[in-house]
Parts: sequence; structure tokens; C-alpha cells
Amino acid sequence: MRIKVINPNTTWSMTAKIGAAATAVAAAGTEIVAVSPSMGPASIEGHYDEAVSALGVLDEVRRGEAEGCHGYLVACFDDPGLDAAREIANGPVVGIAEAAMHMASFVSEGFSVVATGHRSRIILERLARSYGMGTRCRRVRTTELAVLDLEVEGSEACSTILAECRRAIAEDGADCIVLGCAGMADLAGLIARETGVPVVDGVAAGVKILEGLIGMGLSTSRAGGYAYPNPKIYAGDLVRFAPDPARARSEGGGGCRG
Amino acid sequence: MRIKVINPNTTWSMTAKIGAAATAVAAAGTEIVAVSPSMGPASIEGHYDEAVSALGVLDEVRRGEAEGCHGYLVACFDDPGLDAAREIANGPVVGIAEAAMHMASFVSEGFSVVATGHRSRIILERLARSYGMGTRCRRVRTTELAVLDLEVEGSEACSTILAECRRAIAEDGADCIVLGCAGMADLAGLIARETGVPVVDGVAAGVKILEGLIGMGLSTSRAGGYAYPNPKIYAGDLVRFAPDPARARSEGGGGCRG
Amino acid sequence: MRIKVINPNTTWSMTAKIGAAATAVAAAGTEIVAVSPSMGPASIEGHYDEAVSALGVLDEVRRGEAEGCHGYLVACFDDPGLDAAREIANGPVVGIAEAAMHMASFVSEGFSVVATGHRSRIILERLARSYGMGTRCRRVRTTELAVLDLEVEGSEACSTILAECRRAIAEDGADCIVLGCAGMADLAGLIARETGVPVVDGVAAGVKILEGLIGMGLSTSRAGGYAYPNPKIYAGDLVRFAPDPARARSEGGGGCRG
Amino acid sequence: MRIKVINPNTTWSMTAKIGAAATAVAAAGTEIVAVSPSMGPASIEGHYDEAVSALGVLDEVRRGEAEGCHGYLVACFDDPGLDAAREIANGPVVGIAEAAMHMASFVSEGFSVVATGHRSRIILERLARSYGMGTRCRRVRTTELAVLDLEVEGSEACSTILAECRRAIAEDGADCIVLGCAGMADLAGLIARETGVPVVDGVAAGVKILEGLIGMGLSTSRAGGYAYPNPKIYAGDLVRFAPDPARARSEGGGGCRG
Amino acid sequence: MRIKVINPNTTWSMTAKIGAAATAVAAAGTEIVAVSPSMGPASIEGHYDEAVSALGVLDEVRRGEAEGCHGYLVACFDDPGLDAAREIANGPVVGIAEAAMHMASFVSEGFSVVATGHRSRIILERLARSYGMGTRCRRVRTTELAVLDLEVEGSEACSTILAECRRAIAEDGADCIVLGCAGMADLAGLIARETGVPVVDGVAAGVKILEGLIGMGLSTSRAGGYAYPNPKIYAGDLVRFAPDPARARSEGGGGCRG
Amino acid sequence: MRIKVINPNTTWSMTAKIGAAATAVAAAGTEIVAVSPSMGPASIEGHYDEAVSALGVLDEVRRGEAEGCHGYLVACFDDPGLDAAREIANGPVVGIAEAAMHMASFVSEGFSVVATGHRSRIILERLARSYGMGTRCRRVRTTELAVLDLEVEGSEACSTILAECRRAIAEDGADCIVLGCAGMADLAGLIARETGVPVVDGVAAGVKILEGLIGMGLSTSRAGGYAYPNPKIYAGDLVRFAPDPARARSEGGGGCRG
Repeated sequence: MRIKVINPNTTWSMTAKIGAAATAVAAAGTEIVAVSPSMGPASIEGHYDEAVSALGVLDEVRRGEAEGCHGYLVACFDDPGLDAAREIANGPVVGIAEAAMHMASFVSEGFSVVATGHRSRIILERLARSYGMGTRCRRVRTTELAVLDLEVEGSEACSTILAECRRAIAEDGADCIVLGCAGMADLAGLIARETGVPVVDGVAAGVKILEGLIGMGLSTSRAGGYAYPNPKIYAGDLVRFAPDPARARSEGGGGCRG
Repeated sequence: MRIKVINPNTTWSMTAKIGAAATAVAAAGTEIVAVSPSMGPASIEGHYDEAVSALGVLDEVRRGEAEGCHGYLVACFDDPGLDAAREIANGPVVGIAEAAMHMASFVSEGFSVVATGHRSRIILERLARSYGMGTRCRRVRTTELAVLDLEVEGSEACSTILAECRRAIAEDGADCIVLGCAGMADLAGLIARETGVPVVDGVAAGVKILEGLIGMGLSTSRAGGYAYPNPKIYAGDLVRFAPDPARARSEGGGGCRG
Repeated sequence: MRIKVINPNTTWSMTAKIGAAATAVAAAGTEIVAVSPSMGPASIEGHYDEAVSALGVLDEVRRGEAEGCHGYLVACFDDPGLDAAREIANGPVVGIAEAAMHMASFVSEGFSVVATGHRSRIILERLARSYGMGTRCRRVRTTELAVLDLEVEGSEACSTILAECRRAIAEDGADCIVLGCAGMADLAGLIARETGVPVVDGVAAGVKILEGLIGMGLSTSRAGGYAYPNPKIYAGDLVRFAPDPARARSEGGGGCRG
Repeated sequence: MRIKVINPNTTWSMTAKIGAAATAVAAAGTEIVAVSPSMGPASIEGHYDEAVSALGVLDEVRRGEAEGCHGYLVACFDDPGLDAAREIANGPVVGIAEAAMHMASFVSEGFSVVATGHRSRIILERLARSYGMGTRCRRVRTTELAVLDLEVEGSEACSTILAECRRAIAEDGADCIVLGCAGMADLAGLIARETGVPVVDGVAAGVKILEGLIGMGLSTSRAGGYAYPNPKIYAGDLVRFAPDPARARSEGGGGCRG
Repeated sequence: MRIKVINPNTTWSMTAKIGAAATAVAAAGTEIVAVSPSMGPASIEGHYDEAVSALGVLDEVRRGEAEGCHGYLVACFDDPGLDAAREIANGPVVGIAEAAMHMASFVSEGFSVVATGHRSRIILERLARSYGMGTRCRRVRTTELAVLDLEVEGSEACSTILAECRRAIAEDGADCIVLGCAGMADLAGLIARETGVPVVDGVAAGVKILEGLIGMGLSTSRAGGYAYPNPKIYAGDLVRFAPDPARARSEGGGGCRG
Repeated sequence: MRIKVINPNTTWSMTAKIGAAATAVAAAGTEIVAVSPSMGPASIEGHYDEAVSALGVLDEVRRGEAEGCHGYLVACFDDPGLDAAREIANGPVVGIAEAAMHMASFVSEGFSVVATGHRSRIILERLARSYGMGTRCRRVRTTELAVLDLEVEGSEACSTILAECRRAIAEDGADCIVLGCAGMADLAGLIARETGVPVVDGVAAGVKILEGLIGMGLSTSRAGGYAYPNPKIYAGDLVRFAPDPARARSEGGGGCRG
């Protein structure tokens, strides 16, 4: 199976790291294609970056449909564009935040998320509640780091993250860590060894969830709110994002349910 | 004060209707500027349309900052781009769904939302929960209507909506109706007279909430997750959406809070 | 329009302050009438004071109906008698706690309430949950102050409140302050300047919400639990509180809904 | 021990029925004193009646303190004045709604409340949530009955209630009935026999809870929001409701907790 | 009435202490029979001990049915086997955790649970939520103590518990303590005197709840999920736990509800 | 990797069906070992069967540790003994209900569970809430079927289940079906084809989740409530269930966390 891993930001060093993490856990027979969109923010920090980055995610899913991809992983911990992508992909679409939180719930009584900058906190708290993980997620912890600090060789980003993880275990009543940024995908092993608790990286978790869904023959339901978009005109610079009328006719079922 | 009312879709007949509804309730001294973006979907039905339409909303807020607007109303009941817009606007930003639901909570024990097509239901249910209205909102009701059916002179859209409102009052334990589409802004009076219960149109509600916030001197906090976006590079077709570095330095505080 | 602002306690110095705060934000054409009841506690601190003070609130609403008032603001942060007042007023009735919390939700990711004495905490926590603001309200903070300390010229009440507001911003994950007592209505500007975050005073918020509701032609629904009281005998000292049988016949609809 | 059962309305035929139900389940050694206040509404239907009736409840608790009562039962299913009464009573105070719902939770997977008129529904739904019974309470069912219909010999009130109980069991996923009005205290046995499920009358439940609390030596905590009211002036017709300054000094602890 | 108090662990010194606490609050006419099962763990600390101990609880309920018991108290604060026991007992079955939490809700605004070892925390937090006490329970506090430390004469267990109770009152916003282990049943009086707040021991609370239920003629509903077990074969070492086919026919109603 | 699939009941025809479903989705390199315990109920219907069956599950996990199993699937939709098993297994342990519900959340807006007999409903509703799926799970639907009806060749069980699934899609606002019994593992394909919506079988879902967890190197945290059981004496018939003192010393960490 072919899984497209979309890093919604345009920083290709991060994309490479994410691709390596995905490949490392992929099963035999799983092909990982890791990309960044051709447009959008260099990193995603806050609601504005997230909203704009969704366009790039949708663009890559559209390409992926033509490329024969069987599933998609949105590899930013804000899960930008996730619900929209589900409407236009034939295969399942998973976000790394949802994948990580659900996986953590199988191996712990509660987890804390350790993310980068402080402005992510409200976004991740809302995601946790939206995914039903409001109780399991004991705390969203953030640091002074910018996302791109994680890309700087020899920076103190790793030790800052590790210290925050230790505080989470000591103070939050958490017995598990969820890494709150795709750029931390290479740190899971180290932090697990240092802290002795399960550490869940969303990139790896997302690949395994997708392998599971595809292996079970499951994809997004077309019978409800994730039906293919209704056919309609898109204007101006966004004209190429208009839904495909043919698919709208065959897969757009959400408007017809009683 | 100048309030910019942004219809996130590109159907100008709807924009005109929305502008009229806004003007009708505006206080003396309030100037209403009603616009549609130059790009995006002709109507917003589902997650995909919503995600793409956010770009147009953000574009209009960016223009509005140069035009001296004191506040913004996002006039689609999915509240697309609302949180992102808050990061880049100096004045307050309100969505019609949140405005309508909060206003309804002051005059009723519970309300039902009556919207257009079925695929909106999951989006509106999630918004209600996110706004703290999960209990007050008794039910999100949808119909077979497309959003643009509301724009067709002489159609049966109005009678379909009215019939659904009657069912809501009879079956849902609701003593108030919230109209779930900006395109229904002209129906509030009629439905209120026919049903005898308060009927809340989000366009009118949003204008009054904005007048209240601006009158109190309140605007979006910069101390948390709604700080101005961090400065960074935006690539490709989205380059013009890059945050203004000068504002990022002066208004971007969310990354610094402990 | 005429808005009656009812300070449920009998301390007229506070009533004057509340009236001034209401007048300061009122739109052109809004007449503010600020009163205290002729009976009841000098301040409201806890469940007992609150329950007794409801009588005075209802008495003033009854008078207001004869005085041609178009709406009512209950100006104590416990919102005493609010639901009962809704049953007997023709126009909308709003409490300052609910007005402030809802208004705060439009300009912040989360707020803390800063109130006076410690015994208010449980009451305000319950109100926040009841209004759907249990998640948005990050913490109810209380101090050693008595309500009437706020009326003493030259006291340290203001600096005590300000210090607690600073702690809220530093410790609670709140980017907004809601003032938890009508007696703080004159402090909002100062605290906003000192802390740099939005500060919401319920008196001002309530006036603007009422202007909005009245401007939209909305009033309390008679179709559910807020119908005019059923006609019945009231005995003893409370005989004059008996509902008006004529209004009960015409406006009492709550008992008839299916 | 002496338990004062306060029927908050002034209909003494109902008080007699309530007293009989309380006496029927009282343990040897428990003295039941059943009273109605000298003032207030003849029945309690809705927020307004409830708010006004709280005065009578508080008056009877004040008398009861002088009469040597060890505990108090508020015998109206809206639990009017309950929290306020806790502040001024030395012994525990229990409401029949809370007593019934908690007792039902020990013998069932879920219960429905069957009450009288439709306007009570919103009040009882809120009480259920406030008591933590929002999930256990499957539905609040109401009928066309007025409270005082239950006092009419030979009326069809009993068969109306029984029919509604049968519907609750068939439709709500409830395996237990909670009677939602003190005036139904004489119907529990009949309905239990007819339906075959546990039927919980709040008057009986409240007496047993009070016997339990008093037997364990438990009474309302003075360390938090239920401390005795702060000393202060009460004005006008309510002057006699002013707190006792001596008790305020010794029992008023809620204002002092950190 | 005869109430069987089942200490689910096999430490008879604790059983004796529990029996004494139960007897101390029992009404005249209540016979307390306190037992430990013949099999199972010496103390219950964590999910595994709890799951295994349920067998012993069920064994004692089976015996109790033959012994003419009118109700059962499961006297371990994890409430092991409680729901299962309800299916096979004719009379009501109550757990000490649920009894204590519900009783505490009548005399406080919020309580903290003070338990023994840290691994109990997640179990008790889940129980609190399951019983609807997730909001009332302010915090579950645990200590370094093992359950059996409470059985050691002259140990520091009591002072450790007392110190934790003081911290709960100072830090948690709790005005009441719930003792989180049956082995603390003898400490309630001392801790109440030392702290000045209500202290609820679940053994005493459970006896009073059972006296109340039995006195009201209430027992577990057979109309839903607590019907007597369906008749079926049990294999191997557990063959003697097979349900009684005769009772299954007469009391097994849960499978038949619509 | 070796995954032990434990059917907690003793009906080996069901075990064979479960094993086949597990094998059908297992990745290359995954060995499935499907077993039933040597003791316990022939089917699991209700709390009592579930509590007793936990012993057999724990026994099989104990054996599995000696057999070199890398993970365990509890293949009854009540997830009996799941938390207890986590304490004694080195590898991850997953229940089919939790696996199915989480997997369904990735491909749908909401799902209904279709189970066998009516008495399961309350158990499954509680599991859904406990797993954070209380909102995503739109309804738990049950039928007149006994679990073992699913084992009868040529019975109408399949058509009964299919009809209930159709009702779920038409009435519940669900766009996905979760099969609520391990005995339905062979029906997923048929029901998916007939209804056109994703159908999630917990056996398949559990195998894929376990493959994911094991592939990521994740296992149950020992740092909290899932530490290996404390060393202690087990008495009577259950003596062989006593924890291994050596493992308790090395893996029992839950008692030591601050």
C-alpha cells in the first residue's frame, strides 16, 4: 500500500525527518511518500498558519488521488485540513494528533502532550476534547521553542523537550508522553529511554493506524458529513480547488441522508 | 463605527441580503460594509468548502485592516476562518453561529438550529459544543435544501424551513429557533410571527454583539492563543498571506506567556 | 429604550456606581434607570443572601413593568432571581454574570473570574457551568474582601483585586479577566491598562446585550419554562407577589407544550 | 431525632400527605414534624413560584432551629431554598429531588423522572445535572397535570401519572421511576406494583438520607460556601431575615478559607 | 434487617474493624454480619487485585442469599464486583465508595478522597466520574501507604492520613473529606475533630444507605441491565458460579426489554 | 510477532470464528493464537458473566507470558478483565470494544454499536463513555438475540443484525456501524456491502491496533496505575493467581509515583 505523509509546512528538512520516522515503522509492503506542499507557511504556529496551511494539504491530497495513494497522514500536530481532506480522498485520512492520542490511550491511564510554542496550547486542548480525549489528556505543556528550533543541529531543543517531559510525569498524573509536534518524531526513542514511560510520536502512530484501516478495508464513510463535496463553482485564485463534478455525483451522499 | 460583514461565499445576491439584514439592526452611527471575497466557493456546504473559504475570509480581514474597520462579522453559519481572523484583526471578530447561539441563550431554555443541507449537521453540532452550547442546543435540524435554493425567487425554501421550525418546537423541547444559514437572514421575522417563539438570525445577532464589544472597548486578547501570527516565510501561491513582520513584533504575544 | 438596572442589594452608593457604569456605555437613545430594592440585604455574599435578595429583584421587575421598561439587568454577579424575573417581564432580562462570561468568550481563549469573598466561589463555578462556560472559565478566584470593602474610599480593595488579576493571567492560562462583582464596575479600565488583557465588567456587558436583544426585537420565550406564572393564590406576607391572573391567561404557555 | 419536613407550598392537604409518607418510613425514634410556611404560593410551578417560596422555607428553618430540629427536608421537587437553608441550619438539610435521584442510582441503571406540568421540565433537568445525575436521569417527563390536581379526590391524576411511568419504562431505557412531585408521595407503592420497577418517592428517600446523615453525626460543612451568613443589615420588609450576628461570628467560616 | 458487610480482602483484622464501624452506626433492629471471603487477595491495590477479589464477593453474596440477608455492602473502596453482585442478590447491594461520595454530596460543596497507595488514584477517579461525582470530587489524594499499613498497631499511618486530609482542605477547594479505604473506618471521628470538616467513612455511609433502601422497600431493578443472569453453562473451576436456572427464569428480565 | 486472542467465553466454535477473523487481517509475520479459557461462562451477557469471565482472561494472560506472546486481545465486546490484564502482561493488551470504537472514529462522524441482548446496553454505553467515545457513539442498539444464537447455522441472527444496522443508519445520525459482539466477526463484510457504510469488527480492529503498538515498541506504562501488582498473599481457591514477587519488585512502580 502507498501512504502519503503530508507535512503541511514547507520546511523540507522537517519533511525528511518525518519521512524517515514513517518509514522506520512501516510494515513490509507499505510505501511511504513524504511531501510538503508547494505553498504555505514554513511552520505552523497558531490558528492563522493552520488555516492557511490547509490549502496545501488539500492540494497534496488532490495530487495523491491521481498518484494512486491508499491513505494520507496529515503530519502536523494541529491536524490542519483533516476533515476537509476526508471529503476528497478515497482512502482514509488520519492526523498525527488524533493518531497519537488514541494510541496513547491503549497503553496508559493518562498522557500529557509536550508541544513547542505556547500559542499551540489552546488548539491542542480543543483537539483533545474534540477527539474524546479531554479526560485522558492530563495537560498540554508548551515551551519557549519555535517549531523551527527543532530543525537546528546542536540546539538545546531536545533537552528543553526532555525536561518538560520529566515535569509532566512528575506533576501531571500522566504515565505517558505524547509528542506534540511532527518535528519531534526523531526524539521518541531517546525520551522513552530517559523517562521510562511510553512516548508516542504521532507520525509513527498515524502510519500504523493507516496500515490498520487500509488492512481492514476501511475508509471514510460517504453516508454522512464526509461525503464528497457538492458540485459548485469556485471563483478567483481558488478555481482549481473546485470539486470534481463526476465524483460529486457518485460519492456525494451526505446531502441525501434523512 | 465601521463593521465589515464578510459573506465567505462568492454569491453576491446573498451578500446583498446579508448586508440588508445587518443594516436593518445597526445602531445609528454604525456603518455596515458587506462583501464577498474575490475567490472561493459559491456556497459553503461541508468541511471542504469551509476550509477553502477561510482564505477569502482572511483576505477580506487583511483588506479591512487597511480600510479602517473596527470589527468583523463572519457571515456563514460554519464560522469559517473565525479563529484565524482573530489573530490578524485589531478589532473584535465574531461568527454568526456563535453570536446567534449565545444570544438565544438569553431568551430561551433551549433552542434548535434549523439549517440547510444534511451535511452541515455534524459541523454545527461540533460548533455548539465548542461554544459551550452543547446542552442549550437541543438539536441541529437539516433539510434537503441546498444553500443556493434560498436565493431562488419563488422557491419553496421558505416553507420548507418554516415546517422544520414547527417540528423543532413540537418535538425537540426547544422554545427558540436559531436560523442556521446566513441566507435565511430575511426569514426571521416571518418565522417568529408564524411560530410565536423567538427566532435568532446570526447576522443581526453578530452586528449587535460587535456593537457591544466595540462600545465597551473590547477586542481579541493578544495575551494567549490569539496573538498576531509569528513572523515567517510563506511560500508559493500563498506568499501574500505571510504575516506582517512589524505587527508580529508588536502584537505577537502568545508565544511568550508562561 | 428604557433599561432598568437592578442592584439587588440595598447599598445605594453601589447602585450609583453601577448606574454610572451602565450609562457610560449606553448607546444614544438608551435610558438607564438604576435602582436598589426597598428591602433585602446590604450586600450579597453566599446562597442565603442571594435567595432573600431575589424578592427585591422581583419586586423591582414588577414595578418596572408598570414603568414601561423594555429590559432588565440584574446587577449582582450571583444573578439572583434571574430565571424568576424572566417569567414576569415582558422584555428580556439579563444577569451580569451571564452577560460578562458570554462577552468574554468572544475576545479570549479563556477567562478567569476575580470576585470578592471566598464563599462566592462555589456559586460562580456553578453559574459558569450552567451557562455553558465551564471550560472557558479557567478559574474562579476570590479574595479576602467583603463586597462592601469596595465602597470604602481609599481602601486597598483595588490593589487587592489588581494583584489577583495578575495572578490569574500568570497562573490560570487565562488571557482575559471577568470582574466578579458589580461593585468593581469602575475598575475595568484601570485593570485593563495595568494588565494589558481584555477586562469584562458585567454591568457594561449586560447593557450592551440588552441593547442588542431589544434592538433585534427579541424577548424571553413564552413557549417553554419561562411562560408567565400560572395563576394561583399566594398567602401571608407574600400575597402581593401573586401572579396577575390576566397575564397568566394570555402569556402562560409553558404548561401547554407537548 | 426530630426531622422537620417542610412543604414549601401553603396547601396543607398536601402537607398532611407528605407528613404521612415521611412518618410511614421513619425509623423508631424519628419524630417527623410536617409543616407549610405561613406565606407563599399554593403550589410551586416554575422559577417564579420557586424563588418566592424559598422565603417560606427559610422562615421554617429559622423556627426549626429554635424548636430543636436535627435535620430538615425540603419537600418540593424543585428543592427551593435548599442551598440557602444549609447556611442557617445546624443540622443537615436535604431536598427531595436530590434524595430521590441519589437513592435511585443505587438500584437502577437509569431512571426517568415523572413530574406534573410541562414547565417543570427545564428546572428538573438542570437539577439532575447539578446533582451529577445528568447521565443517570434518562428523561424528565411531564404531563398536563397541575400540582393541585393531585389533591383532588377521584381525579384522573393517578392514572395519568401511571400511564406516563409506563411510557418511561417502554421508551426511555429507564429501569426505575423517580416521582417528580411531593404530591405523589402516596402513589409510589401502587406504581411499583403496577410497573414492576423500583419507584422512588423523594419524601421517603429524604427521610432515610437524613436519618443516615444524623446517625453518622454528619452535618453541612462550615468550611466552604455553606458557612453561616456574614453579619449584615437587612432592610425593609425582610429585616427579620437578617442573619444572627452571634452565629455569624462562630459559624461563618466560608469567608476565611484560602 | 440483616445486612451482610463483605470485606473483599482476606485480612480478618480489617474485617473486624469494618464490622465494628458498621455496627456502631447501625439502627436498632439492624443485624450486621461482617465477613471476608475464603479466597482472594490479602489486600486490594489496583485493577488486578480488584478483578480477582470480585469472585470472593460474589461467593459471599451467593451464600448470603441462603442466609436470609436483606442487603449487602461491598466494603472495599474500589467497589469490586458491585454491578455483578446486583444481578444475583435479591436485596440491594451498595459499595462503600458510592455510598460515601453520595453522602458527602449532601453536606458539602465538594470533597476530596484520601486513599492509600498511589495506584488507586486512577480507579477512584473513574469511579467518581461513573457515579456522577466527577465535579463534586475535587481530587483523589493518595499516599505512600499500603493498605495493610493501616492494620499495624502504632504505625504512622494515621498521622500520614491526617496530614493528607489537612492538605486537601487547604489546597483542593474541598470542604469535606471522604476516606478512601475501608481500613480507615476507625479514623473518621478523629480526623473530623482535628480538621473541623465533615469526614465520611464509606462503611458507615453504606450501612445507612442500605437501611434506607431496605426501609423504603427498594431493591435492584430487574427490568434492565441488572436482571438475574441468563441461564448458561459455566465450565472448569468456576462451575459452581453458574447462575441458578430457576431464578434466571423468574428474575431474568433484562433480556426482554424493548 | 505473536498475538494471543483470548475469547473470554468457553464456546470454542466462537473461538474458531474469532481466530479466523484475526488471521484474515493479520500482517505477514503476525502469528495469531486464539484460545478460550479452561473455565468460565459459555457466553458473556451482563455484569455477572463478565466479572466471572475475567478470571479466565487473566489465566490465559499468565500462560501467555510464559508462551512468549507479544500482545493480547480480549475478544469479548464487554472488554472483561482488560485493565487487570494490563498489570500482568509485558506486552500491550487491547479490548475489542475499545479497538473498534477508536478505529471507527477515524472513518466516520459518528457510529452506532449493534450488539446482541438488551442487557448489554448499559455496559456498552459505559464503556463508550469511559473510552472518550460518549459523543461519537450515537447509540448502543441491542436485539432479542442471545450471544450463542450467532453460533447456530442457518439461524436468523444475521438478518436480525442487518436489519438493526439499517435502522441505526436511518435513525441515529450514524454513518458507521460498530459490531458489538465478537461472535459477529464474520458478518462485517456482508453488512458493509449491504449498507454501504464502514462496518468495524473489533477483532480485526484489535489485531491491527496491537500490530501498531508492538511495531512502535509501545507497551503498557508501568509508571502509573498499571504497574505490576504489589506482592501479596492470595488465599483459598485463588492462590495460584497471586502475583509473582520477582516481577512485583522489578515492574511494580505504580505505588511509588508522587
